[in-house]
Amino acid sequence: MLALAGIPLGYEFVFVDPSPNAPAAVLGEQITCGYADPVGQAALAACQVVTYEFESVPVEAVDELATKVPVFPPPFALSVAQDRLAEKSCFRQLGIGTAPFEPVDSVEDLTRAVQTLGLPAVLKTRRLGYDGKGQFVLKRAEDIELAWLTIGQAPAILEGFVNFERELSLIAVRGRDGETAFYPLVENHHRQGILRKTLAPAPALTMDLQGAAEAYAGRVLEHLNYVGVLALEFFETRGTLVVNEIAPRVHNSGHYSIEGARTSQFENHLRAILGLPLGDPSAQCFSCMLNLVGTLPAREAVLAVEDAHLHLYGKSPRPGRKVGHLTVRAKTEARLAELVAQLEAIPGVRDAT
Amino acid sequence: MLALAGIPLGYEFVFVDPSPNAPAAVLGEQITCGYADPVGQAALAACQVVTYEFESVPVEAVDELATKVPVFPPPFALSVAQDRLAEKSCFRQLGIGTAPFEPVDSVEDLTRAVQTLGLPAVLKTRRLGYDGKGQFVLKRAEDIELAWLTIGQAPAILEGFVNFERELSLIAVRGRDGETAFYPLVENHHRQGILRKTLAPAPALTMDLQGAAEAYAGRVLEHLNYVGVLALEFFETRGTLVVNEIAPRVHNSGHYSIEGARTSQFENHLRAILGLPLGDPSAQCFSCMLNLVGTLPAREAVLAVEDAHLHLYGKSPRPGRKVGHLTVRAKTEARLAELVAQLEAIPGVRDAT
Repeated sequence: MLALAGIPLGYEFVFVDPSPNAPAAVLGEQITCGYADPVGQAALAACQVVTYEFESVPVEAVDELATKVPVFPPPFALSVAQDRLAEKSCFRQLGIGTAPFEPVDSVEDLTRAVQTLGLPAVLKTRRLGYDGKGQFVLKRAEDIELAWLTIGQAPAILEGFVNFERELSLIAVRGRDGETAFYPLVENHHRQGILRKTLAPAPALTMDLQGAAEAYAGRVLEHLNYVGVLALEFFETRGTLVVNEIAPRVHNSGHYSIEGARTSQFENHLRAILGLPLGDPSAQCFSCMLNLVGTLPAREAVLAVEDAHLHLYGKSPRPGRKVGHLTVRAKTEARLAELVAQLEAIPGVRDAT
Repeated sequence: MLALAGIPLGYEFVFVDPSPNAPAAVLGEQITCGYADPVGQAALAACQVVTYEFESVPVEAVDELATKVPVFPPPFALSVAQDRLAEKSCFRQLGIGTAPFEPVDSVEDLTRAVQTLGLPAVLKTRRLGYDGKGQFVLKRAEDIELAWLTIGQAPAILEGFVNFERELSLIAVRGRDGETAFYPLVENHHRQGILRKTLAPAPALTMDLQGAAEAYAGRVLEHLNYVGVLALEFFETRGTLVVNEIAPRVHNSGHYSIEGARTSQFENHLRAILGLPLGDPSAQCFSCMLNLVGTLPAREAVLAVEDAHLHLYGKSPRPGRKVGHLTVRAKTEARLAELVAQLEAIPGVRDAT
């Protein structure tokens, strides 16, 4: 989606991906190798600018590359986002509301942390967790051993449980000159730890809530000397925001922006890392994004729905895999709800959401 | 632009182009050969469906291909659009207003036609004219010989001069099942025979005018048993429409639709030829498309303008060559005019428009 946004701007793309059938391969030169492989590194070093859209690339590889070519988001941002302890500590340092947390490196740590934070609480590995993997919801003290074993006895943090009303996210973008732009907060719906649906803008969004989110995002962008799109995931609880985590990349909850915003997150990420002026992030209507997880609906059925837009990633479906998404737009929230209901009734969408 | 619209729908593309540096080559497999070359024909015959976006491909090649694979728009439509006499005769047969015309195959024919139609009149070759090439505006009877020599003594038609207030065009689309959709009429501005600017929808567009254009388009689509996007170019004269010509393809005056309509002409062309439901063609705001002819502006300058979108085609600039376009959007026509003025002040845009 980055390349689809960048080709009309006149750019060419080189992709490094360990998978031989990477969806992006049709849009440029693909180099099939590991992220740290010298062949891939050399090809990237010959580019004008390098970015990544997967936060588990090794920081060492990105650090090394950054000595040869501009790499954005900056490696420091990647290192913070890869480590839940560093991330949460950063929020705390910046005065940003987040769930109470304690570092956990042993079952003894975990026992102490449970005493400090109380139950329920969530045990999360510090690294390599996404889509709900590497997590254990601890409800009873008897489960401490099981939790520690389940997450693989890896360095972790225990987070106090946040009783939230809904999950929101903010797509923020910062240019090389420090210019910032903020998309409206969106409301996200997860199932089995996987994002299924995004409503943009978030229903009943107030200027106060948007302002609070932008203030938090501004502090994080500044602190990380960030360049590119950054996603911040929030819990809303009694009108206030608690930051859950950040993603140093274009984000699934911003996919609606291709049709739903004046400038898509993909184009704005490219504008940012290329030193171009940022585009208007405002919503031009009410949008809903539905992820296609594990199954594909019939094109005919999806495209028969008014103002529905289909995005397939060229991936073969398997359980839990995001293989595409739909975006549908409307002038009113009521009409949007009708169109979403039409889409959700389609086999292959219904099962995915 | 067709491939950029089709890749998210999950399709792969094969391109046949005689030019080794075709802009589309980055978006699929390119076969560099003539349109009638057996190698290209074989590659296309292996596809699910074939289309073209250049109306000077040889009808014979398309006819031959159509015996092996579905080809849309149908070869008959291509043959009509390639021959101004067949095209004008078709309009007349369908009761569609067009300029008076006479076939011209010799200087004697031309002399007679001038007597019948009067002067001024426009002599146009029957074939291979576009962007104002192959035309001569006859103002005085003394220029008959010069006109005939200038257009190369090729089979031609003489058209009575239409005193028009403005040029409009309609992008129409018809699916394999006969479903039709019509974009709003747009207003086009040419210079030196080349489209420079499109306003969408056309200012002061009335339902009567739109209705008349759709009625004409409907008759043409039906008559040609058309599938895909068809552009109709009109002159507006005292509130009525006179058809100038048709183009059996996605059309430059529809480029605004990528950002300015609910479904772009490119996606709708693909939906039509693939037998999918058509998408909503309605405008979602006021848009202006500016062609980049012969020169390229600085990206920074263009992207600094609110809601401006840049499309570069990967072609090297030379005089008269369309190398890209800009689309800018606004909620009101007044705001649009301000933004267009900002764009037109940019070097490389100013010279192009």
